[in-house]
Amino acid sequence: MVIIMKPTATKEVINKIMQKMESLGCSVHITEGENQTILGLVGDTSKINPSQIEANENVDRLVRVQSPYKLASKLFHPTPTVIEIDGCKIGGGNIGIIAGPCAVESEEQLMTIAALTKKHGAGFLRGGAFKPRTSPYSFQGLGEEGLKLLKKAKEVNGMPIVTEVMDHEDFDLVAEYADILQIGARNMQNFSLLKKAGKTNKPILLKRGLSATIEEFLMAAEYIMSEGNLRIILCERGIRTFETYTRNTLDLSAIPVIKELSHLPIIVDPSHATGKWAMVEPLSKAAIAVGADGLMIEVHHQPELALCDGAQSLKPAKFGRLMEAINKISEALS
Amino acid sequence: MVIIMKPTATKEVINKIMQKMESLGCSVHITEGENQTILGLVGDTSKINPSQIEANENVDRLVRVQSPYKLASKLFHPTPTVIEIDGCKIGGGNIGIIAGPCAVESEEQLMTIAALTKKHGAGFLRGGAFKPRTSPYSFQGLGEEGLKLLKKAKEVNGMPIVTEVMDHEDFDLVAEYADILQIGARNMQNFSLLKKAGKTNKPILLKRGLSATIEEFLMAAEYIMSEGNLRIILCERGIRTFETYTRNTLDLSAIPVIKELSHLPIIVDPSHATGKWAMVEPLSKAAIAVGADGLMIEVHHQPELALCDGAQSLKPAKFGRLMEAINKISEALS
Amino acid sequence: MVIIMKPTATKEVINKIMQKMESLGCSVHITEGENQTILGLVGDTSKINPSQIEANENVDRLVRVQSPYKLASKLFHPTPTVIEIDGCKIGGGNIGIIAGPCAVESEEQLMTIAALTKKHGAGFLRGGAFKPRTSPYSFQGLGEEGLKLLKKAKEVNGMPIVTEVMDHEDFDLVAEYADILQIGARNMQNFSLLKKAGKTNKPILLKRGLSATIEEFLMAAEYIMSEGNLRIILCERGIRTFETYTRNTLDLSAIPVIKELSHLPIIVDPSHATGKWAMVEPLSKAAIAVGADGLMIEVHHQPELALCDGAQSLKPAKFGRLMEAINKISEALS
Amino acid sequence: MVIIMKPTATKEVINKIMQKMESLGCSVHITEGENQTILGLVGDTSKINPSQIEANENVDRLVRVQSPYKLASKLFHPTPTVIEIDGCKIGGGNIGIIAGPCAVESEEQLMTIAALTKKHGAGFLRGGAFKPRTSPYSFQGLGEEGLKLLKKAKEVNGMPIVTEVMDHEDFDLVAEYADILQIGARNMQNFSLLKKAGKTNKPILLKRGLSATIEEFLMAAEYIMSEGNLRIILCERGIRTFETYTRNTLDLSAIPVIKELSHLPIIVDPSHATGKWAMVEPLSKAAIAVGADGLMIEVHHQPELALCDGAQSLKPAKFGRLMEAINKISEALS
Repeated sequence: MVIIMKPTATKEVINKIMQKMESLGCSVHITEGENQTILGLVGDTSKINPSQIEANENVDRLVRVQSPYKLASKLFHPTPTVIEIDGCKIGGGNIGIIAGPCAVESEEQLMTIAALTKKHGAGFLRGGAFKPRTSPYSFQGLGEEGLKLLKKAKEVNGMPIVTEVMDHEDFDLVAEYADILQIGARNMQNFSLLKKAGKTNKPILLKRGLSATIEEFLMAAEYIMSEGNLRIILCERGIRTFETYTRNTLDLSAIPVIKELSHLPIIVDPSHATGKWAMVEPLSKAAIAVGADGLMIEVHHQPELALCDGAQSLKPAKFGRLMEAINKISEALS
Repeated sequence: MVIIMKPTATKEVINKIMQKMESLGCSVHITEGENQTILGLVGDTSKINPSQIEANENVDRLVRVQSPYKLASKLFHPTPTVIEIDGCKIGGGNIGIIAGPCAVESEEQLMTIAALTKKHGAGFLRGGAFKPRTSPYSFQGLGEEGLKLLKKAKEVNGMPIVTEVMDHEDFDLVAEYADILQIGARNMQNFSLLKKAGKTNKPILLKRGLSATIEEFLMAAEYIMSEGNLRIILCERGIRTFETYTRNTLDLSAIPVIKELSHLPIIVDPSHATGKWAMVEPLSKAAIAVGADGLMIEVHHQPELALCDGAQSLKPAKFGRLMEAINKISEALS
Repeated sequence: MVIIMKPTATKEVINKIMQKMESLGCSVHITEGENQTILGLVGDTSKINPSQIEANENVDRLVRVQSPYKLASKLFHPTPTVIEIDGCKIGGGNIGIIAGPCAVESEEQLMTIAALTKKHGAGFLRGGAFKPRTSPYSFQGLGEEGLKLLKKAKEVNGMPIVTEVMDHEDFDLVAEYADILQIGARNMQNFSLLKKAGKTNKPILLKRGLSATIEEFLMAAEYIMSEGNLRIILCERGIRTFETYTRNTLDLSAIPVIKELSHLPIIVDPSHATGKWAMVEPLSKAAIAVGADGLMIEVHHQPELALCDGAQSLKPAKFGRLMEAINKISEALS
Repeated sequence: MVIIMKPTATKEVINKIMQKMESLGCSVHITEGENQTILGLVGDTSKINPSQIEANENVDRLVRVQSPYKLASKLFHPTPTVIEIDGCKIGGGNIGIIAGPCAVESEEQLMTIAALTKKHGAGFLRGGAFKPRTSPYSFQGLGEEGLKLLKKAKEVNGMPIVTEVMDHEDFDLVAEYADILQIGARNMQNFSLLKKAGKTNKPILLKRGLSATIEEFLMAAEYIMSEGNLRIILCERGIRTFETYTRNTLDLSAIPVIKELSHLPIIVDPSHATGKWAMVEPLSKAAIAVGADGLMIEVHHQPELALCDGAQSLKPAKFGRLMEAINKISEALS
């Protein structure tokens, strides 16, 4: 940790801060410049509350040296984490493809789509039973009935199920059916939900919040991990920017950044990032080329009748062609 | 609702869409341009799912004419909503001042701060018992013990209590003690929590999400209202932008915008918006001048020892001087 | 300057960097932590090129301690700069009001608006002769004819003229007529224009770029000042964010921040920030309350016929009422 | 064009607007809803000034149907534009690689890098002679001497030259030496420079502004094209967002969006977008996979001694390996 003092800070003030820091158990090295003094802190800085230091009006800034996350950090866990379910893998060189409708709407709908995504090579089936919608007047999902249909689709097609859990209350119910529990972008800093997710033994698919920095994203993972669940798949799904042509701006730089900072696998959801089916194919190819561990893609056989997010759903045939292109890129890069 | 067709859309395609829209119960007026056709939809458009229309590859865009919120809209409820608790009012020309520490830390701390904020003119006491922290390793609040201390402070000082509720689980417990339940910025789109808040009879202080548009903010209020609870106080607390000198960027334009769109009261939290105590005074004055219905300000008698957000807490004497300035501005503008 | 090494950096690598830094004339203090080493640099760090250090793959980050601007910094020039023209002042407690049409359109238009803004208390007259428009097909301004009309309006009303200069080519022409030369937001980092502005003896009104950080804003001022022209008025006019209800998001926090960092006066342009006349009044009041040294407001007697930005122009009577409110707030705060 | 009236608009007001619109030469179709009236305008809407309409307090919003750019639009020019210089092509399926140092520093430096980038397959040589730097105290480029060195490098290696032009004054000088004239991100809305660029016969490489929407980007191209120069290469180089780990956020979605809207070629500059050499390789691969027409990459044989942007420069050997990967992806996708 580095404390940068203001030019106005007197020796007395600086000494007082140094003593306080040392009393908290770390050692302090002082660098005195002409205008400003710098304090370098090493040793155990875990007892230091940065906001208390910044509350001092003689302190200009405080600069952290180490990342605030530990369990999610590559520094302490250099080997890539691999999530495996029934032989389907994500991470460590294994590309996982999760596909399916935005929401489970009916048995006929889910079975049709599941069979087609399976045929074209998807490994995991997605589908929402509990849907977080920005309007209270929109379709909110089929609830438990949706979960039962997902289970049926899994039995028929052998694809592990990825579905969203929105709160504490339904957590155990969803965990009973799902193979991977998804925490949505708007819940990325729902700390109660993260703690609950940390206590289950199911892998968590954690989506990046719309305005979450990469560090906050990894801190959300750390929340889950600190409760004991280390099986997390991160998912980049677009951040909020000033550009309005696409719904959000897919931040593909986040993939190599996270590969540098963390051992956790990271996949990309181009459907939600852009909100437009025509953008899904090019951005999926880019995601694989940039090094993502997988994709999460919305597929619907009748987008014009979809109860949710039809505008961003690929038709099965287009999904099939995309899978071929992805395979070619993967091969070219391996 | 207006549907703008792509230049490539044939008459047949356009007719098909018109028929579908009419079958859903609205009437459609066509405007044919040289390159593009525009469809104006009126009547009951509530059965139309915009995403289904946008899924059509011949549709360029869909433009909504009416706001997606109804209960929160000034159009259907032109009189300003006033929240009143024990004679303290917020809204409709009444400026409410909510002050207190970020977190309840101890009886001595809370009682000291409560008495001083009361003395300087604050109407409501704030203090967190359950704290949403970005790090799992930070102080998470005293929990129920904190709520009990808040109750004691209320008994002594007669100030209604504002405190945050983070989840379903603790909702009833917090609602037992609080006069106003706060939903934090990171939970603004925690739809399960919003629904639960809609079923209580306590007023809700709803903070704007870091990357929420004003429309999404009002839709979050609509979520609560659609469940029956109409007593909502909105709170602007800064949005996430590229500027890093302040923690977030306080969007004071949102105050007159919301006054134009909604009847709900809106207050401002300059402490969380900026993260710096030195910014609280000028921005509080600006908030009152721009027309806010109140302020939410963090006050601590020993910021350098605060367990949470010391850097943004005003000392009581500074808070006192701020209250004087605010009163002068209020008088000047009335 | 602080250099934070990566955990992988060997002693040898660290020694090499230390030697290089010392050879450039500064002294280096080392703080060795368990995982990471921190180097504190003091003395003359002006010869250090940060990008060269960051090019080293063993360097994690480089943290600057001092601001990159000197002439614009309050540290080296604590007294507020006051700009005075013909007795009209901006800065150091003097609030300057600049008002007038977006563009000079005709003699009748300009004379009408100038007289009315003067009557209501504006000190300076604004009006564009060379207009930066986002479309090449929009009205581009009257050019020199517009400048001549501004001169005539000045002769009649005695108001110093503020008008925009867009490039090198027209610089001397505009400087001949204008009392204050405006550099627009989109030219804030047009470094050639900044250098040219540094060589004139006219004060410069420098608008913040749409995506400029406060530091970049002050660096743009530094560019001008480094060429010799120290008379600069900064102008906050909204930054680009995800919110689309207003054209940009007025960042009123920037006012107290700049007051803390710099001695230069800073005014606010609520007309361009919001693009909506109804937002101008509340935000102008907030700007004065937050401590701005003045306002720049678009006024037009016939906004529905304005050739440029009619939607954000106040009618003269509304401008008059705003001036009264502003005077009341100023008095209340003094 | 669609005009959405406010619920408060009376029939009289609506009739008046309709008459005005018709007097400007377009025809108006009215759609009357229960609360709000919609006016659809077709025919020649070019004489309508949107801001004048929005100045009317009975108008809620105005929605444009057609894009504001014509020459840059794919609608009126469906065939992809191909830029060709000495047999090197960009656009229409041809991937152009532009590589070289940030700034020309010396003959030895430029010749070394030019030869190595040529060897590894780059088609065009980049290098700055006039450098836009955020600090007036940073290296500003070698000026004409730099241009002469670029010419020499071209003679030796046969690579067409891409270099930046910063202003009117140096325009003709730079145009004498350069094969492609670059307009930097900070000058994207320097309208004087755009107009000048429209009058030259050299192709223009136009970089997207840090906070420019895709529409504004295409409007900047339109500015150049409206003056007669149709040979433009667009360049995505990152937009400003809240994320600070990378310098800017590369918006790869912009590539397929622009391919949908325009016939102009678009390339990607991952070096400036991220500011970090380690991000250049993965993002270059993604750029090719997403469909970009080329790349602009900074290469330096001694990044730790580079006078400018060393931290984002690839060493030649790494550039070579990247070129191999890019070729593989191109083949896989063709």
